[in-house]
Amino acid sequence: MMRCMRLDLDYEGTRFHGWQVQPGVRTVQGTLEEVFLRVTGETVRMVAAGRTDAGVHARGQVAHVLTDSRLDERALLMAMNSLLPPDVVVKTLRDALPTFHARKCALEKRYEYWIWNDPLPSVFGRRFAWHIKGPLDVDAMRAAAQVLPGTRDFSSFQASGSPEGCNPVRTVRCVEVRTPAAGTLHIVVEGVSFLRHMVRILVGTLVEVGRGRMVVPDMEAVLQARDRRVAGRTAPAAGLFLMKVCYPEEAAQG
Amino acid sequence: MMRCMRLDLDYEGTRFHGWQVQPGVRTVQGTLEEVFLRVTGETVRMVAAGRTDAGVHARGQVAHVLTDSRLDERALLMAMNSLLPPDVVVKTLRDALPTFHARKCALEKRYEYWIWNDPLPSVFGRRFAWHIKGPLDVDAMRAAAQVLPGTRDFSSFQASGSPEGCNPVRTVRCVEVRTPAAGTLHIVVEGVSFLRHMVRILVGTLVEVGRGRMVVPDMEAVLQARDRRVAGRTAPAAGLFLMKVCYPEEAAQG
Repeated sequence: MMRCMRLDLDYEGTRFHGWQVQPGVRTVQGTLEEVFLRVTGETVRMVAAGRTDAGVHARGQVAHVLTDSRLDERALLMAMNSLLPPDVVVKTLRDALPTFHARKCALEKRYEYWIWNDPLPSVFGRRFAWHIKGPLDVDAMRAAAQVLPGTRDFSSFQASGSPEGCNPVRTVRCVEVRTPAAGTLHIVVEGVSFLRHMVRILVGTLVEVGRGRMVVPDMEAVLQARDRRVAGRTAPAAGLFLMKVCYPEEAAQG
Repeated sequence: MMRCMRLDLDYEGTRFHGWQVQPGVRTVQGTLEEVFLRVTGETVRMVAAGRTDAGVHARGQVAHVLTDSRLDERALLMAMNSLLPPDVVVKTLRDALPTFHARKCALEKRYEYWIWNDPLPSVFGRRFAWHIKGPLDVDAMRAAAQVLPGTRDFSSFQASGSPEGCNPVRTVRCVEVRTPAAGTLHIVVEGVSFLRHMVRILVGTLVEVGRGRMVVPDMEAVLQARDRRVAGRTAPAAGLFLMKVCYPEEAAQG
């Protein structure tokens, strides 16, 4: 019988053209599938909870794979990690229920977006944060963030050119702006699922508020407009991390 | 009159062959001097508090430069940073007393050495930490660290091949092993000055204790031996950060 295995992954997105296999470029999925083939001799398809875009990082991506391999969990984990490049690591790999599906079973996802807010660049944050030189009004960003949660039509926060007919209603649980250290902002976004570029457009719009180019009540107006052109720019990919995927307890266990 | 200026710097050491100018390789000093020349037209010599080795990072390096330039502090800072590569940044640049000398006036330096202690590699720590797979006895490392402070002959902790006749007596103020998060060790070393590779050999020796290959009383024996061969290996450069240089108040101000 086919075995369903769950993988928990970290990767630095800098040198990947995103999760999804595409001809001629280096992707996380392609890298994992190639290594799985080398270890087991089997051509498989890895399915991720979230198909992260080029440059986006993950500190808690989840994937599943169907396999005929009889290697035990630990041997497979160690073999894969010994062959993977340094910018991706499988943190755990274990048998899951045959019905487990990394994307379809996901109840909720947490993203974090990191901003370095200082007149000067950050040597150590440059791969992992959006550098914003001018001052940001964090209180205004917090107030604007409170407008977002709920089950709503997020058309204004969807990448232009997204396929027509895609349901633009999404449920956002919370948007929180944290300031763990001087010059550092972490914007935490939790929700059931997200439209294309949605987290990065939410962040780009909050930053417009932080810069004083938009005010808090504009946030509601942007939502109402259902028009990508009224929201802020798409924040750069390098600041975004997929942090956690939540599953119902029974689906996550093997 | 010549102006003496103090620079406070961060850099990621990964792609630098250390601080000091050497023909044909990329160094921090060489990069700064080249940018200074482009900004002011002047060929200068930058002097650092600590000449970090290839691969070593800095989050608080201090340098000084003697210049005839009349550019104001802020203009010079912004111009330099606009031309510097992303792995080095001048955080502050200001006039100092003409007697200020980044190395000779330094009273004390603080280094941090980061270890990632987990069976699996760390995607995000790989450029900034020594990966040690096996378990470490942190309590034993802490006990061994307490043996080190004092004004002592640190010959055993000096790179072999160091120039003869160099005084091997150094004053170490404190060595502290911190565990800020699961799997993360930070070894903080403060002292007046250090022999070549001294911090990395101290760390390598503490790790031998952590691995159980040496015991706490061995630490005193290693010091007594005054022989590089009895200490542990030199810990890799990538885990080391120069964090802070302390000056007497009057020397630091312009």
